[in-house]
Amino acid sequence: MVNSLTRTTKPDEDFLYMQIADRLGSQINQLILRTGEKLPSVRALSQEQGISLSTAYKAYVQLEIRGLIEARPKSGYYVRYTPARSFNEPKRERLAGESEKVSLDEMIAMVYRNFSADSIVKLSMASPALSLLPLAKLNKSMAEAVRLSADSCISYEAVQGNANLRTHIARQAFAWGGNILPDDVVTTQGCMEALVFCLSAVTKPGDVVAIECPTYFGIFSTVQSLGLKIVEIPTSSTEGPDLDYLAKAINLHQIKVCLFVPTFSNPLGYCMTNEKKKKLVELLAKNEVPLIEDDIYGEMYFGRTRPRTCKSYDAKGLVMLCSSVSKTLAPGYRVGWCIPGRFKAQIINLKLMHSLSSASPTHAAIGHFFETGRYDLHMRNLRKALHTQCLRYTQAITEYFPDDVKVSRPEGGYVLWIELNKKVDAFELYKQAIAFKISISPGQIFSTDSRFTNFIRISFGTPYNEEIDKSLKKLGQLMSEF
Amino acid sequence: MVNSLTRTTKPDEDFLYMQIADRLGSQINQLILRTGEKLPSVRALSQEQGISLSTAYKAYVQLEIRGLIEARPKSGYYVRYTPARSFNEPKRERLAGESEKVSLDEMIAMVYRNFSADSIVKLSMASPALSLLPLAKLNKSMAEAVRLSADSCISYEAVQGNANLRTHIARQAFAWGGNILPDDVVTTQGCMEALVFCLSAVTKPGDVVAIECPTYFGIFSTVQSLGLKIVEIPTSSTEGPDLDYLAKAINLHQIKVCLFVPTFSNPLGYCMTNEKKKKLVELLAKNEVPLIEDDIYGEMYFGRTRPRTCKSYDAKGLVMLCSSVSKTLAPGYRVGWCIPGRFKAQIINLKLMHSLSSASPTHAAIGHFFETGRYDLHMRNLRKALHTQCLRYTQAITEYFPDDVKVSRPEGGYVLWIELNKKVDAFELYKQAIAFKISISPGQIFSTDSRFTNFIRISFGTPYNEEIDKSLKKLGQLMSEF
Repeated sequence: MVNSLTRTTKPDEDFLYMQIADRLGSQINQLILRTGEKLPSVRALSQEQGISLSTAYKAYVQLEIRGLIEARPKSGYYVRYTPARSFNEPKRERLAGESEKVSLDEMIAMVYRNFSADSIVKLSMASPALSLLPLAKLNKSMAEAVRLSADSCISYEAVQGNANLRTHIARQAFAWGGNILPDDVVTTQGCMEALVFCLSAVTKPGDVVAIECPTYFGIFSTVQSLGLKIVEIPTSSTEGPDLDYLAKAINLHQIKVCLFVPTFSNPLGYCMTNEKKKKLVELLAKNEVPLIEDDIYGEMYFGRTRPRTCKSYDAKGLVMLCSSVSKTLAPGYRVGWCIPGRFKAQIINLKLMHSLSSASPTHAAIGHFFETGRYDLHMRNLRKALHTQCLRYTQAITEYFPDDVKVSRPEGGYVLWIELNKKVDAFELYKQAIAFKISISPGQIFSTDSRFTNFIRISFGTPYNEEIDKSLKKLGQLMSEF
Repeated sequence: MVNSLTRTTKPDEDFLYMQIADRLGSQINQLILRTGEKLPSVRALSQEQGISLSTAYKAYVQLEIRGLIEARPKSGYYVRYTPARSFNEPKRERLAGESEKVSLDEMIAMVYRNFSADSIVKLSMASPALSLLPLAKLNKSMAEAVRLSADSCISYEAVQGNANLRTHIARQAFAWGGNILPDDVVTTQGCMEALVFCLSAVTKPGDVVAIECPTYFGIFSTVQSLGLKIVEIPTSSTEGPDLDYLAKAINLHQIKVCLFVPTFSNPLGYCMTNEKKKKLVELLAKNEVPLIEDDIYGEMYFGRTRPRTCKSYDAKGLVMLCSSVSKTLAPGYRVGWCIPGRFKAQIINLKLMHSLSSASPTHAAIGHFFETGRYDLHMRNLRKALHTQCLRYTQAITEYFPDDVKVSRPEGGYVLWIELNKKVDAFELYKQAIAFKISISPGQIFSTDSRFTNFIRISFGTPYNEEIDKSLKKLGQLMSEF
């Protein structure tokens, strides 16, 4: 919105009080000042705005005449209740079926928009339901971390990040086969900032990045916003990325960096075997190509042991592991990190230049949550819950969806990747489902050329309930009608 | 640090337990696992690492032999106290005087490094002392905001930012002559992220940015990290930026955007007059050049009224105002915002792609702090304190520094810009002062060509005390000796 010029530098008194009244009136009409609120005194207004007392007074009289404020004897001016106040116009959402041909960006924007709509059953969201998160214990950690901090977490943190948090990230690395020191870790604002810093550290605009296909749609716009080009490496839900294809592509396209999700990739839910991870690291090391390993789902394993990471095979410091607590603990806290190997100095420098430091209270709180062992306990419960939910959703899909539907068998993570009959257009299905207030992720948004037209991604992050059951049943019906 | 490859994919039992022992031993030696801490049980270790019980047992025995852990009967394994444990090597700071010729980047890095050293009198830091900040009330706001939130601030915020916070930013805009709606505001991770987004929204690599000279040194590296070129506009401490020079430079250098600090610029402390602000906005509007207005010091005025902003004259939506609470309230909270005019959609998109959303708890806490009126009260006190400190520091400088020294007369902000005798090399002075544990900002770091060789910046953010008094006296002595 363009702001109108409403104050002049050469105050003409007659004119000025009207302008002040206009601006205050606009704040009242826009509900920025609310009914019953006290306005500054005439003297305070005159000082605040550098105008004479009489101008301030005239501005208030003007607002009284307009019926927007009222004077209360010996008290001051207050915003009046008036039914004539204009309310915020209801925002018009684009309705399903309105547009015939939509671009990939528009598709993604539509799915994103539904993320924040309350009344919708969000089978599209690859993150945990609020009921699975430890709100009370996290609040305790926040309060305790602030209390224990010498400065109540009000000062800038060191650029590299909270030391206690980094220590516990290093400790957790032991479980995925890492030999990591606290000094190897740099904290970030969620995993997204870590990915952006890692990409920026090793590329310049015009460079080529290899990603898996299909992959998480948020990656496309992030990579492209940095002026980078994308090469998509075919990835199967049972075999993972085609490393022979990658080997050829490295030279053919002069790939500068790979950005992969080796453990429980999104949307496939596929976890590379240890052997494959090792092979990938060796292939890239031979070509001196860095690997950005997005490990954000790595802790959500259903088996007995935490899968190893590519980072654990990294002999040359070329692997940059990125992760966060956004999928495990607290999306809104924006606490993430990277373990950037030989690129640490560049990453710290980028952090210094682009965000100075991380938010002290939230990072201290997560460090405290790790330290007290609350995290380990929470994760044991979360993994169990997710595993159960995965099985329950799969069972329902087998029951309700047409017989020719194929479902992935993830060993961790949040999502099922579902292949439908070739006749079904997933985006059409998305639009039909949203009319019934069910949100799914159509396969089209998981590649730059929208190739997965008969696939959908369904998240099992929400505990199974009657509403989910109805929604899956309805989805099955919609599919059958194609 | 490059991580060594310490686990194999084809477990050879004889070999494997040694590797596990090595990795655990390294965690113990690096103090990641601390004396007295309990280790996982043999069974837990075997599950966690996917190894046999006997391998896990042998690994622990190996660590016992090395004297790093001890078995306590019927309890488990614990990290032993051992004086032989290697401690973190003390980091070697580069000492003053060690290097003869240093680059601008190195100078800046040296000053930054001293920021976090405890024992140093930080006359170099342009931000408030901890004692001037409302720790207790802010903690209350944090606790209340989390308690009042339906989800304890654990979920993702909307991309544009916390609605309550945006409402209060819009309300505050009234004081600087703005007519701003909550929907005009986008929140960010501090002012720095706002500046980066605004620069990214209107430039591509290779484009030219105009900045004031002298200006805050952090800007150089941030601008350059985005692949942008810098043109410095000469700026006087009494007249501000040379707008005639800027007018010519716009065409000569094809300037794509201006990044200025019109109100209490850093280091000059100069505040453009309303007329000059209006003229700047009109000049840029005529040439369709956007202005990024860094208003981070705008609230720290010593006079009776809040200075207007360039944004308040913005008829075309070309001015992007950026600010934060980092200089007024809570540096570590990383709560900032921009009011990006016609570039709002691009800014929201960049935020979505680069950081997804802001940290919910800290942003909700600042919104609450604004809402309860705590902010207004705090700012009245802070302004008074800073004004007093400014006068007190100036008085001491007049008394202690040589007679030919000239001091700026700021009407707000945190810093004094001081011109020394031409014979004094400010960076030499910096190095001599740091030997006495006094940190100042040498003039050289405020321009890309290090031209201000006989200037220093001194911050008056810390309440005047005996230590400050001694430091200023010592600085005066050092100057006289040149």
